[in-house]
Amino acid sequence: MIPADHPRYRSLVTRERLAQCAKQGIVALEGLTAHGRGEAFDYLIGERTTRSALIAEQTAAALLQTARCPIISVNGNTAALAANEICALQKASGARVEVNLFHRTEARVKKIEDLLRESGVDVSSGEAEQLLPLSHDRAWCRREGIFSADVVLVPLEDGDRCEALVNMGKTVIAIDLNPLSRTARSATLTIVDELTRALPQITQACQETSEPKKVKLISRVDNHYLLTEAIREMTERLSYALD
Amino acid sequence: MIPADHPRYRSLVTRERLAQCAKQGIVALEGLTAHGRGEAFDYLIGERTTRSALIAEQTAAALLQTARCPIISVNGNTAALAANEICALQKASGARVEVNLFHRTEARVKKIEDLLRESGVDVSSGEAEQLLPLSHDRAWCRREGIFSADVVLVPLEDGDRCEALVNMGKTVIAIDLNPLSRTARSATLTIVDELTRALPQITQACQETSEPKKVKLISRVDNHYLLTEAIREMTERLSYALD
Repeated sequence: MIPADHPRYRSLVTRERLAQCAKQGIVALEGLTAHGRGEAFDYLIGERTTRSALIAEQTAAALLQTARCPIISVNGNTAALAANEICALQKASGARVEVNLFHRTEARVKKIEDLLRESGVDVSSGEAEQLLPLSHDRAWCRREGIFSADVVLVPLEDGDRCEALVNMGKTVIAIDLNPLSRTARSATLTIVDELTRALPQITQACQETSEPKKVKLISRVDNHYLLTEAIREMTERLSYALD
Repeated sequence: MIPADHPRYRSLVTRERLAQCAKQGIVALEGLTAHGRGEAFDYLIGERTTRSALIAEQTAAALLQTARCPIISVNGNTAALAANEICALQKASGARVEVNLFHRTEARVKKIEDLLRESGVDVSSGEAEQLLPLSHDRAWCRREGIFSADVVLVPLEDGDRCEALVNMGKTVIAIDLNPLSRTARSATLTIVDELTRALPQITQACQETSEPKKVKLISRVDNHYLLTEAIREMTERLSYALD
């Protein structure tokens, strides 16, 4: 039991939630370490949605809503932390939701699909095939799912897989707190924000952004600018601490 | 099996070791997340001992060796990653070693004490009491141990507990890769370095630093300078990425 007056309460509760889900086999042990790395970078952007991240989130909404076949790819950490937020985004954007794991077992896929359905997500499931140009178990996805999608939202994705999706000609939207990661650098659009802040912002933008603004956002996608801004925020925050 | 020539060999072996220890109940699942957080900050200081960290390590050696009652507080991650290094530091510094856990159970304390003893550490164990001014299970320590110490080395400590120890008038030496953390800011002396690099440096300094230099180091403890230097290193490294 974490005392509610602990200054890092939210962060500690999140870790506890992930630890519980690791015990249940939903989150991989490697997922816990990966979450920690994200926490550090979140600290450096001030644990808030920056101005440039908000632009990325509004652009993501526009890309999802104007896609022919948008898909949200969900892994263990995402399901553990944000099943409700995924449900809301699916309703707002009309995107399909597919479970896609780095440490893939059929048992884990099933557990994660169950967790998502309990939160009201309409999960596209069924037979997966080795369709991505990657070695063995990381190559799996559904032919009617991620393989056919034109726009894929990948929260917390592996760098290799992100690159493979981009090379297949897809528009890839990554949510990644590390602006230096290969995922962040190879995605079409990178949202440098924490998952449970980012998803509701995309949902809200789906509901509120005007059509002309959506067109404008899509015409101006500039991932280099977004990453540079994120790095600038981190550098600035570190510099304040110098005073 | 990770190949020894893998560019990330050390980091991957460390993660594997922690995951194994998590399965055995030595490392808390929350400890895996905390490790990931450290990894991110270590990346930002270039995964090496910086000049300012070395000064902190030499100062730590001087503080431990001149203490009336020095203690090294060991948690699950520390025992999993650095039992041998703790043993060597204990021999060089004459400090007592006590297990002190954030996620405390008697079973975990026992497992960690056993692991340390297997590596040759002389562990002070026995009855603990709720002696620190903190809520419930985080308040525990031994009356003859941390409660009586004048100098406490706390690798990877929680911010609340670090502050409580400082408020009790103790000299607290923290090892913490995040120079912005409450632990780093509240400790008397903060070593911004990775645990398995930091401990051998302290041990070496115990053996090699001359008496006049020790006196000088202790008279010049300036934690603000040490944290500022660590932050400057990180800012510089992030700025490179902007080019």
